[in-house]
Amino acid sequence: MTHARLEKLYDAMAAANLDAVAINPGPTFAYLTGVSFHLMERPVVMFFRPGKDPAFILPELETPKLELMPYKTQAFPYGEIPGEWINAFKKGIQALGLEGKAIGLEPRALRILEYRFIEAAAPGATFPDAASALASLRITKDADEIAKMRQAVVIAQDALKACIPQIKIGMREKELASELTMQLLKHGSSPEIPFFPIVSSGPNSANPHAAPSDRKFQAGDMLVVDWGAAYDGYISDLTRTFAIGEVAPEYQKIHQIVQASNAAGRAAGKPGAPCAAVDKAARDVIEAAGYGAYFTHRTGHGIGMEGHEDPYMRGDNQQLLEPGMCYTVEPGIYLTSRNGVRVEDNMVVTESGSESLSDMERDFRVVGV
Amino acid sequence: MTHARLEKLYDAMAAANLDAVAINPGPTFAYLTGVSFHLMERPVVMFFRPGKDPAFILPELETPKLELMPYKTQAFPYGEIPGEWINAFKKGIQALGLEGKAIGLEPRALRILEYRFIEAAAPGATFPDAASALASLRITKDADEIAKMRQAVVIAQDALKACIPQIKIGMREKELASELTMQLLKHGSSPEIPFFPIVSSGPNSANPHAAPSDRKFQAGDMLVVDWGAAYDGYISDLTRTFAIGEVAPEYQKIHQIVQASNAAGRAAGKPGAPCAAVDKAARDVIEAAGYGAYFTHRTGHGIGMEGHEDPYMRGDNQQLLEPGMCYTVEPGIYLTSRNGVRVEDNMVVTESGSESLSDMERDFRVVGV
Repeated sequence: MTHARLEKLYDAMAAANLDAVAINPGPTFAYLTGVSFHLMERPVVMFFRPGKDPAFILPELETPKLELMPYKTQAFPYGEIPGEWINAFKKGIQALGLEGKAIGLEPRALRILEYRFIEAAAPGATFPDAASALASLRITKDADEIAKMRQAVVIAQDALKACIPQIKIGMREKELASELTMQLLKHGSSPEIPFFPIVSSGPNSANPHAAPSDRKFQAGDMLVVDWGAAYDGYISDLTRTFAIGEVAPEYQKIHQIVQASNAAGRAAGKPGAPCAAVDKAARDVIEAAGYGAYFTHRTGHGIGMEGHEDPYMRGDNQQLLEPGMCYTVEPGIYLTSRNGVRVEDNMVVTESGSESLSDMERDFRVVGV
Repeated sequence: MTHARLEKLYDAMAAANLDAVAINPGPTFAYLTGVSFHLMERPVVMFFRPGKDPAFILPELETPKLELMPYKTQAFPYGEIPGEWINAFKKGIQALGLEGKAIGLEPRALRILEYRFIEAAAPGATFPDAASALASLRITKDADEIAKMRQAVVIAQDALKACIPQIKIGMREKELASELTMQLLKHGSSPEIPFFPIVSSGPNSANPHAAPSDRKFQAGDMLVVDWGAAYDGYISDLTRTFAIGEVAPEYQKIHQIVQASNAAGRAAGKPGAPCAAVDKAARDVIEAAGYGAYFTHRTGHGIGMEGHEDPYMRGDNQQLLEPGMCYTVEPGIYLTSRNGVRVEDNMVVTESGSESLSDMERDFRVVGV
């Protein structure tokens, strides 16, 4: 499989006029090698150039992982003295003949740490942005990848279902977030969950990116839970919003609007539709209800090995959906200092339309009493 | 507190001839602001320049977090259209007058993503390496920070103690790693644990950075557990090595050597001693026993808000220890394809010597039967 991915990479590089790419640990690295490395203070970089064995710069203590590589690489390990690391980079650059070449970089993954070594080791090279070329590799998922994402959704849903009976007035946001994390692991999530759950209540729920706090759930709160699981390198990312006890009628109303917006966004995805159409379908519902100003973010993002990846469901994105693309639909209404609501599902584009991988109940629901 | 940290930052910048620094989410950002952001596809950057309110480039949907900032900043939020993000960077750079100035960067944190925007927005600026200046802020911990690290150690030790009775022949590495993660949360670790535990057995234990696998524990294995907890932004990072059932005499012997090496490394830390002396003290024990070639990494690394940070316990590091510096002592012997042993503690330099924050039993111990 990884051999086929290398071929795909070389095709994408040719189309983007890249002589080489430099990849450091992250989802693209895992996709191309099948091997995971952590991003640490010791730089790890793989240089790919068509027609040559990739050149692999890595610390000596990581060399046992070379046995896991699915194809031949040229390894250039370095020792513990930082002043000597540049030599490994120079050897790797020379082995692939990259002086003066166009070496594509991945802006979201590569750090100044690696970049300074690469610059110094490759005199005269240029460093174009390889983000689009690399995103094109991972943007459509095959059946095997979709099966893993489906499993990540099942694990996440089962984990939250196990938590719901434990939600009570007086419970702290952090407590529920910890309990949900434990349930994710118990239900089979890989231990490196994609992100720590957002559990936000009352005024905190009006902040789309709130971190769980010590705030205790109170009657009248809306409760946003945004969580996901990881399964064999693929993730899920879902949101459900609950009412704690009796809430003001407006919050039940905005829940219904967001639920309708989520349904419209889910229905809009199909091969050939632009990403913007998914955003518009969801946004139109909220705007028609008079809450447009309170839906402050895009409708969704691509999902796969990474929490946020291409394609993005934004009003300005004319990229066309294709079978196998996966993304979230997650409209929300945020009434600052009061309450917020978001409902999020994970979609896959099929041959004829799109399917939600997630099916957990979305209806307005009172919990905690 | 964060005001005092700003003053420390400005002093360190002056000493390093930096007009400004650009900080993106990570430990330094959290140290300077008290606020956590995730590293995402939307760039977040704070520019600090003495005498001016810091300029904060961030996505509109993160602006609720501005209320958490402990001092005044100039916020330059941007919307969902990536093509327009550069404008927020330009406004921030102009507000601080950073065109043509020396803007220090943090190589381990800043990505090409942020760098390209900064470069484009600050014509004529230079971008020196600010790693040392920034490391100097966090390298000595105050009493409050040490108390948090001590708590992170207690949580980690209690979590592993709760797992030991569950270790059995036939258990998989991944199962123990998941169970240990759950116990960390149960014992009060912040949910974002510093790293997923390393649980490596038999031949896998001979790889210092092994990821937990599906391998089942067998009688005769050495079992390396390298784990840590997080508490209020500070972490622990410990290792203990066990024997599963009866092991070959050599493995008991190397455990004793590593334990003695760990004790020698712990004893060597004191104000005024170079980091190299800690490395030498630990390494000498292993070399004298004839296993020097199998201790393939440095003796330790600094620890605090980050898993690996300054100061590093390396043979070439003449940096002098000072009261409040915290670091690991973690010698190991790795017999490739056979078994490995590592024993790791977390140290703090005191006025008169150094103290181990961790005290969990280090003696050779048989488990799983």
